[in-house]
Amino acid sequence: MAQYDDDIAVTPTNDPTRLAATLDERWTVGGGLNGGYLLGVVGSAIRTVVPAKPDPITVSAFYLGPGTPGPAEVHTEIKRDGGSLAVVAADLVQEGRTRLSALATYADLGSFEGSVRTTAIEPELPPVEECVSTLDLGEQMRKRAPMYQKFEMRFPKDGLGWAMGQPSGRGEIAGWFRFRDGREPDAFSLITICDLLPPVAFDLGLPGWSPTLELTVHVRAVPAPGWLKLRHASRNLAGGMFEEDCEIWDSAGRLVAQSRQLARTPRGV
Amino acid sequence: MAQYDDDIAVTPTNDPTRLAATLDERWTVGGGLNGGYLLGVVGSAIRTVVPAKPDPITVSAFYLGPGTPGPAEVHTEIKRDGGSLAVVAADLVQEGRTRLSALATYADLGSFEGSVRTTAIEPELPPVEECVSTLDLGEQMRKRAPMYQKFEMRFPKDGLGWAMGQPSGRGEIAGWFRFRDGREPDAFSLITICDLLPPVAFDLGLPGWSPTLELTVHVRAVPAPGWLKLRHASRNLAGGMFEEDCEIWDSAGRLVAQSRQLARTPRGV
Repeated sequence: MAQYDDDIAVTPTNDPTRLAATLDERWTVGGGLNGGYLLGVVGSAIRTVVPAKPDPITVSAFYLGPGTPGPAEVHTEIKRDGGSLAVVAADLVQEGRTRLSALATYADLGSFEGSVRTTAIEPELPPVEECVSTLDLGEQMRKRAPMYQKFEMRFPKDGLGWAMGQPSGRGEIAGWFRFRDGREPDAFSLITICDLLPPVAFDLGLPGWSPTLELTVHVRAVPAPGWLKLRHASRNLAGGMFEEDCEIWDSAGRLVAQSRQLARTPRGV
Repeated sequence: MAQYDDDIAVTPTNDPTRLAATLDERWTVGGGLNGGYLLGVVGSAIRTVVPAKPDPITVSAFYLGPGTPGPAEVHTEIKRDGGSLAVVAADLVQEGRTRLSALATYADLGSFEGSVRTTAIEPELPPVEECVSTLDLGEQMRKRAPMYQKFEMRFPKDGLGWAMGQPSGRGEIAGWFRFRDGREPDAFSLITICDLLPPVAFDLGLPGWSPTLELTVHVRAVPAPGWLKLRHASRNLAGGMFEEDCEIWDSAGRLVAQSRQLARTPRGV
C-alpha cells in the first residue's frame, strides 16, 4: 500500500456512519497538520459510505480548529445518494471537538463524458531536471515541514524569490509535484495535493502561518500518470484575508483540479 | 422593508434551531427557483442563530434538488461560535426532503481591517446609460425568468451575442446590477447576487438549464451604495461540467465578492 493511502486509511467502528482514523504526525507543517491531508482523511471516510461513487467531484471543507496527530473519528451523514451523484456531510472529530466540517459530492468520475473546452492556460515551467527539488531543502526546513518527506516538489530556480526573502509581490507560486514513493496521482489524491504548495502569501511578502477558513476543490478529470504541475495564485488580499486558487495540471497537459481557499493573513498584517 | 429582505425573511418555530420560510415564486428562472435566492433564505436563517456575526464571509451550498415555491424550513447546527467567527451548517428542507445543504462562516465584516492588495482587474463596462436594460426584455423572457422583476441588469450592446444566438465562445458575461426597489447592496445580499447573471454556458453556445452542483461565495468587503458590476467567466468545461466564477465589484471600484460554482452542462452536451 502506498504511504498516502495508508496515512488516510479509515477503519470501521460499531456505528457504520463513523469511521476511525489515526492522524499521522509526519503530515505536519508549520506546527499543525496540513489541511489537505486532513481533507484526505475525511474524503477517505466519505468514500467508504458511498462505495459505488469513489471519486470526489466537489468538496468544501471548513476548518474549525487544528487537527493533532493521533486518534480521530469522521462522522458522516449521507444527504443524498441517487442517480450518478452522492452528497455527504462529514465532520472530523478529535476529543469530542469538531476540527473540520465538510460537504462533498462524489461520483464515478470515469463515467463522466463530454467535450472539453478549456481557455485556461497551462503554467509554463522549466523541465523537472532543471528545477530545484524540495529534497535538497536544508535541515531547518525539514524540521519545520516534516510533510516534505512524503512528496517531492520542484521549483524553477528563478521562481524561488519567496523562499529567499525576495517575494515577487505577484502572488504566484508554481512547481512540479509527485509522491516520493512512486504512487501515481489519482482523482482522489488531488483533494490533498491542492493544499500542499507553500502559501501564496509567501510571494506577497507575508511569511508565517496563514490559517485556512475554507477550502473548496473541484476534481475535473482523472489525472494521467507522471509529474503534476501545481500553480497557486491570489488576486485579492483584503480585510485580513486572501483567497488562494490552485490549479493542478497533469502530464498530458489537462487541467484536472481547481481549488480555492479563503485564508487569514499571518498575524499583524 | 425592501422586497429582497421580505422574500428571504424567516420566522421562528418551536425549535430554536429551525426557522420557517416561504419561498417566493417570483424568484423563478427557467422553471426552478434561483439558487442564489435559495442561498439567501438559508443565509438569512443562519444569521438569526448567530446574531452577533451578521455577515457571511464564506458560504458553500450543495444543491440536492430543486426548491419549489411555498413553505420551507431551514435546519441549522452551530458547528463553532467563538472569537470573531462562527461556522454553521444548514439544510433547506421541503416536504421532508433536503433541497440544499450549506456550510457557512459568519462574522462582523465591518470589524475586519487590514491592507488591501488586489491584482484583480475591474471589468470594463460602458456607462450604465449606454447599456441595454433587462427592463426592456421581451414578454417571452419575462415569462421564462420572472426573477428579472426583482432587479435590473444592464449589458453592453456589443456583449449580448449570447442572447442573440451569437455566443462569443469566450465564456464571459458581464453587466451592471441593482435591485429595482432601490435597496442598496450590502454584504449579505452578495450571496444571492453572485448567482443572478445568466449562465456563462450561454456564451459558450450552450443555452439551456445548467443545474448547479455546488456554489461557494467569499464576501470580501461591505459594498458601497450604487450599481454593482458583475462578471461571470468559465475557463474549463469538461466531463459534462463547467465551473463558473463570478466577481462582484462595487461603485467604488472594489472587489467585494468572489464566487465559484460547479454546474452541469445542459443535457445532451
